[in-house]
Amino acid sequence: MAEKNLTAILLWSCPDKKGLVSRIAQFIFERGGNILDLDEHVDRSEQIFFLRVAWDLSGFSVAPEKLEETFLPLAKEYSAECSIRLDREKRRLAIFVSKYNHCLQEILWRHELGEFDAEIAVIISNHPDLSYLAERYHIPFHVFPITRDNKIQQESKELELLKQQNIDTVVLARYMQVVSPKYVEKYPHRIINIHHSFLPAFAGGNPYKQAYERGVKIVGATCHYITDVLDEGPIIEQDIIRISHKDSLDDLIRKGRDLERLVLARGVRLHLQDRVLIHGRKTVVFD
Amino acid sequence: MAEKNLTAILLWSCPDKKGLVSRIAQFIFERGGNILDLDEHVDRSEQIFFLRVAWDLSGFSVAPEKLEETFLPLAKEYSAECSIRLDREKRRLAIFVSKYNHCLQEILWRHELGEFDAEIAVIISNHPDLSYLAERYHIPFHVFPITRDNKIQQESKELELLKQQNIDTVVLARYMQVVSPKYVEKYPHRIINIHHSFLPAFAGGNPYKQAYERGVKIVGATCHYITDVLDEGPIIEQDIIRISHKDSLDDLIRKGRDLERLVLARGVRLHLQDRVLIHGRKTVVFD
Amino acid sequence: MAEKNLTAILLWSCPDKKGLVSRIAQFIFERGGNILDLDEHVDRSEQIFFLRVAWDLSGFSVAPEKLEETFLPLAKEYSAECSIRLDREKRRLAIFVSKYNHCLQEILWRHELGEFDAEIAVIISNHPDLSYLAERYHIPFHVFPITRDNKIQQESKELELLKQQNIDTVVLARYMQVVSPKYVEKYPHRIINIHHSFLPAFAGGNPYKQAYERGVKIVGATCHYITDVLDEGPIIEQDIIRISHKDSLDDLIRKGRDLERLVLARGVRLHLQDRVLIHGRKTVVFD
Amino acid sequence: MAEKNLTAILLWSCPDKKGLVSRIAQFIFERGGNILDLDEHVDRSEQIFFLRVAWDLSGFSVAPEKLEETFLPLAKEYSAECSIRLDREKRRLAIFVSKYNHCLQEILWRHELGEFDAEIAVIISNHPDLSYLAERYHIPFHVFPITRDNKIQQESKELELLKQQNIDTVVLARYMQVVSPKYVEKYPHRIINIHHSFLPAFAGGNPYKQAYERGVKIVGATCHYITDVLDEGPIIEQDIIRISHKDSLDDLIRKGRDLERLVLARGVRLHLQDRVLIHGRKTVVFD
Repeated sequence: MAEKNLTAILLWSCPDKKGLVSRIAQFIFERGGNILDLDEHVDRSEQIFFLRVAWDLSGFSVAPEKLEETFLPLAKEYSAECSIRLDREKRRLAIFVSKYNHCLQEILWRHELGEFDAEIAVIISNHPDLSYLAERYHIPFHVFPITRDNKIQQESKELELLKQQNIDTVVLARYMQVVSPKYVEKYPHRIINIHHSFLPAFAGGNPYKQAYERGVKIVGATCHYITDVLDEGPIIEQDIIRISHKDSLDDLIRKGRDLERLVLARGVRLHLQDRVLIHGRKTVVFD
Repeated sequence: MAEKNLTAILLWSCPDKKGLVSRIAQFIFERGGNILDLDEHVDRSEQIFFLRVAWDLSGFSVAPEKLEETFLPLAKEYSAECSIRLDREKRRLAIFVSKYNHCLQEILWRHELGEFDAEIAVIISNHPDLSYLAERYHIPFHVFPITRDNKIQQESKELELLKQQNIDTVVLARYMQVVSPKYVEKYPHRIINIHHSFLPAFAGGNPYKQAYERGVKIVGATCHYITDVLDEGPIIEQDIIRISHKDSLDDLIRKGRDLERLVLARGVRLHLQDRVLIHGRKTVVFD
Repeated sequence: MAEKNLTAILLWSCPDKKGLVSRIAQFIFERGGNILDLDEHVDRSEQIFFLRVAWDLSGFSVAPEKLEETFLPLAKEYSAECSIRLDREKRRLAIFVSKYNHCLQEILWRHELGEFDAEIAVIISNHPDLSYLAERYHIPFHVFPITRDNKIQQESKELELLKQQNIDTVVLARYMQVVSPKYVEKYPHRIINIHHSFLPAFAGGNPYKQAYERGVKIVGATCHYITDVLDEGPIIEQDIIRISHKDSLDDLIRKGRDLERLVLARGVRLHLQDRVLIHGRKTVVFD
Repeated sequence: MAEKNLTAILLWSCPDKKGLVSRIAQFIFERGGNILDLDEHVDRSEQIFFLRVAWDLSGFSVAPEKLEETFLPLAKEYSAECSIRLDREKRRLAIFVSKYNHCLQEILWRHELGEFDAEIAVIISNHPDLSYLAERYHIPFHVFPITRDNKIQQESKELELLKQQNIDTVVLARYMQVVSPKYVEKYPHRIINIHHSFLPAFAGGNPYKQAYERGVKIVGATCHYITDVLDEGPIIEQDIIRISHKDSLDDLIRKGRDLERLVLARGVRLHLQDRVLIHGRKTVVFD
């Protein structure tokens, strides 16, 4: 097999202007880049331009380490927010869990199959229960028990560990603690959560119980970025499953597990492939 | 073609007790009834028994007009709420609309095809816009323009019309007025509404705008009975459709139309086939 | 309201080469075009490049009538198949029907709402039954009864009518006749059919009966282009609905109607918006 | 926690007759049984009656071991096929696999969570690859390598093992060998397979490749009983997922894995809960 070529991925958003696509495409082409994928979107109501371009770096005249610096003047010209990543730079993930194993099991299984282009550097939990799963997949497992009194201290230790481990993205795989603003600040749009309801329906605690008592005919799950406001962050992915009066609360929980696993996994994959751009409370997902 | 046999449909709910199914089945069988369909459900958390039985009345020893009276002692014995209907008694419907034609068009088209076992007796609107559709299907159309000042008076006239027309069920087919408690009182669990969101998400006004601004990846529609509390009545049916960042607010409205039509039509059909039992804020739907 | 700007839409496919996106984007930008939408796709297994670009013609230096001629050298250079359409040029449709009204009703209703950017020039049928619908929407209705003996003659007359009416696209809205190769030849990838099954399952006649007898748990509908081989043309859109043992054959037909209507309507809309590119037996759909 | 009560489950099918439900319900009630669940269905086109009843055996006047013998005369009277099972009798499963781990992983994980009321007695494979998963969950793993020459001999050994292990139901969790008629004969409607397509579409080998080449917009998975004719057995459950031109063959395989796992797991659960009755090539599924 030939050596895999190096690919660069540019995410870009700015106020819409004439000629943006051709300007950026030209910019890449002139430097010898072969565009592999280009997705663009214009939000007409707010006149914002979103772009994702992936190009082959073999033959590109700019060295990988100079990429950001090269695009900087262009980004400034258009008042753009942009980021560039090389696909060889594997992101380092921290997975947070509590006692439920289904989301963690799903992520570990998919990772093993090669579905996630990332390294799972560490699993962090407020309970020791899932250490057996971490062991099984040979991933360091750290327990930080959380009480009302020690929460601030423990979170500081966790953040230190994340920093030391050079963590890029945090995945809350049914972690049953509210994450402090401190985290959010350090990992803006890089903490991914799975909420076990179709947000904004049944935000907050016990969503299956809420759904059961309301008598809805469909339940859902939502994968979203964590922001300061609980359950209000930009949504990456959602899905649903039909239920009926025959389903007890336990049935909802059981059926919901399947949703949570899949929706979280899809969201994490989209994030890892740089397919998600943030737009206020919303996302643009180039899937 | 042979004459269609007469069918009776019993809806029954009561505190759960041993032997209920066999008791009721036996009760019908002893009188010569052939059970065509039997659906039962026990809500284990609240110990309530729900039943729907349909049986062939040819050979039944009780005259149709004595059916209710015959079942009364049995219902009393079990403290049951129950209702019996003969399928020859077509329900009379009133459809309420405002300016959007899609839900009305759908109902009229399906009715023409024979999907609804009912008579559409009258169409009522607060605007004259859809009179052409009523004419096309030869159904009386009445306009009751509603202002803040005349609302009480107009509703009284509407109620009089409903009474005079012997209306059994009211269908709000995107009727853009909140119905007064007066109606709800007269038509308990017999006013069916379509709400253009996945309740309880985006209750209230402008649900598509709310959904657009929140950035959800799925939108829905909910068919429910009207109760005193807005958008809180028992849900009969829900469905959803996937959307993406590419969808403008207009796209949501356009795609939502397809959902609203189908979900309302399914809900109305289930109601007309006596397949919906009420259970507090919830429904049991024997589909 | 300001006058709507004129938009050009280019569909393009060719063997993949380096720099294609930037070349075409640049080509448009140099002539003063503002790209509104750009979608590209590379089929990696066959190394084929697909593109759809829409751009604003206000300020474009090439006159609308010279567009094709302007792009010709570029297309030749890349051995591309390409087509350009102005959105002011409304396509003229012919709808073919037999006796079922649901697909025709759906198309006429959506057209009235402005969902289809096209003119419905004529409705053609082998039966007179649906003339009332054509009248209702003020569209010419022509009956060409088909027997084994007169099929060739009648089709010739139909084709003459299509030519005279300057028809661009033919929609078979549950037209119960197999269309001759003659049509297909004259309207390559411009005859859209709805098949009432999830192709390739249950191709041919009576798909609901086939599905009922096989005992599947899901039925579907397929919108596809007609080619020489029955039910084998490129698929534009498919969707499904769950069924169960409770559903009789009549229920399948009833539920299937809802699918057929929606899937055909979506397929026709995608075609009319130039969002479908052909790729052998497959399609690339830029939705 | 109180000791769990013993429950009996009767599956019954026979030619439809008047009074069947009341007769069977009465039969159970007279012997002191409290009916917990009753589902019935009449296939009107073939006049066949299907029933599933579950009842509480505490206070039942017939000893568990005499249940079958007690119902025999009733079954004879109506020419019924019937089976009775006590929920304390855990079924013993054999899981057959080859090299793919996803379906096996899913079953083992769900089993651990208590979703399947059964014992997984043995895992059998024609390859040694998945022994690590069997070890992880402490389940005996047997390898029977299959070649053209040794197939008959190896299958005999497998059948012996199944017999010795008192296996009730065989689950083919992506087992890449065609099972011989010998098996089918010994385990009629007790061998459950997952086929990675929406049957009857893409029966046979390489269904994802077939789907990819045909250009369908949806792929599916089918859980069915094995019969003599390949991919033609009664279908228990099906589900689908949308795909697009963006999906490569590898994407189809990846997305399909999620379907296969869920659809197989649902099918196995329905079977283990005695919710599936066979009806020629079809099933009645009381879910």
